[in-house]
Amino acid sequence: MSEAEPSPVRKSGPAFRWEGVEPRPYKDAGGASFKAISRQTLFSDSRLAGELRYFEIQPGGYSTLERHQHMHAVMVLRGEGECLVGERIHALCAQDLVTIPPWTWHQFRAGEATPLGFLCLVNAGRDRPQLPNGEELAALRARPDIAAFLDGPGSAGPVKKGRP
Amino acid sequence: MSEAEPSPVRKSGPAFRWEGVEPRPYKDAGGASFKAISRQTLFSDSRLAGELRYFEIQPGGYSTLERHQHMHAVMVLRGEGECLVGERIHALCAQDLVTIPPWTWHQFRAGEATPLGFLCLVNAGRDRPQLPNGEELAALRARPDIAAFLDGPGSAGPVKKGRP
Repeated sequence: MSEAEPSPVRKSGPAFRWEGVEPRPYKDAGGASFKAISRQTLFSDSRLAGELRYFEIQPGGYSTLERHQHMHAVMVLRGEGECLVGERIHALCAQDLVTIPPWTWHQFRAGEATPLGFLCLVNAGRDRPQLPNGEELAALRARPDIAAFLDGPGSAGPVKKGRP
Repeated sequence: MSEAEPSPVRKSGPAFRWEGVEPRPYKDAGGASFKAISRQTLFSDSRLAGELRYFEIQPGGYSTLERHQHMHAVMVLRGEGECLVGERIHALCAQDLVTIPPWTWHQFRAGEATPLGFLCLVNAGRDRPQLPNGEELAALRARPDIAAFLDGPGSAGPVKKGRP
């Protein structure tokens, strides 16, 4: 190990924080709807083909409803919540595993009581997410269960009525 | 999502087991020394450049002392233990992060009281590990702290005296 190599161990702190890892905004702005979610990049290295990130959604918050070519491989670390994957909604508990296949609409939502924290493995080289257009969103919302999910506590879907 | 796609959510069971994930032997035999360690592959998919595995070492057990070109990106999920990375020994607790740089000797050991369970992210395409030869092992064991680590509770290093 060269002298230039940083310490191989980064200790965990309280509340899902780590030495040398800064919480970042969930994503750059750009029209995407999301709420109360933070991102910490745990492993990102030119010698690794994958990146491992930790996301945490506060109660009532949610990630962006989106799809992309690259896959997500998710492990829940804390809390409870739900996710939409394609046309199905799944309840999530700690340590559940979620696979988001390519080009599949998905969104994660925390429950009302506890944060939802999860690891997400992605390819280091990956495409940018797509947001649903009006027609795609209408097709999703045509299903009452999906509409209810998207309108969940604290929700504001991308074109929800009343959103500025 | 095509009909052929398996369920995107695999629920966690008790004691760090998952639906549809079988515990496997830690590695194929081949002269490597290890003890009381199991492997579960959580994510491995041709569309993912990385693989995420969960290893669990029972009290007194240890992984193989080895090195390789590919990196390990590790997050401890449960228990306590220690790891050797290069020439340093690090105490490990839940959620600590460990980076094993290329060509760095490393070994994980559980403590005496609890299992040590950790996630390990690797590149899907990777080289086979190398074991230390006699000279390399002697160089490591020349350091008393490393010798004590390798001779830890329940230990049997690859050429430890008295091993058949």
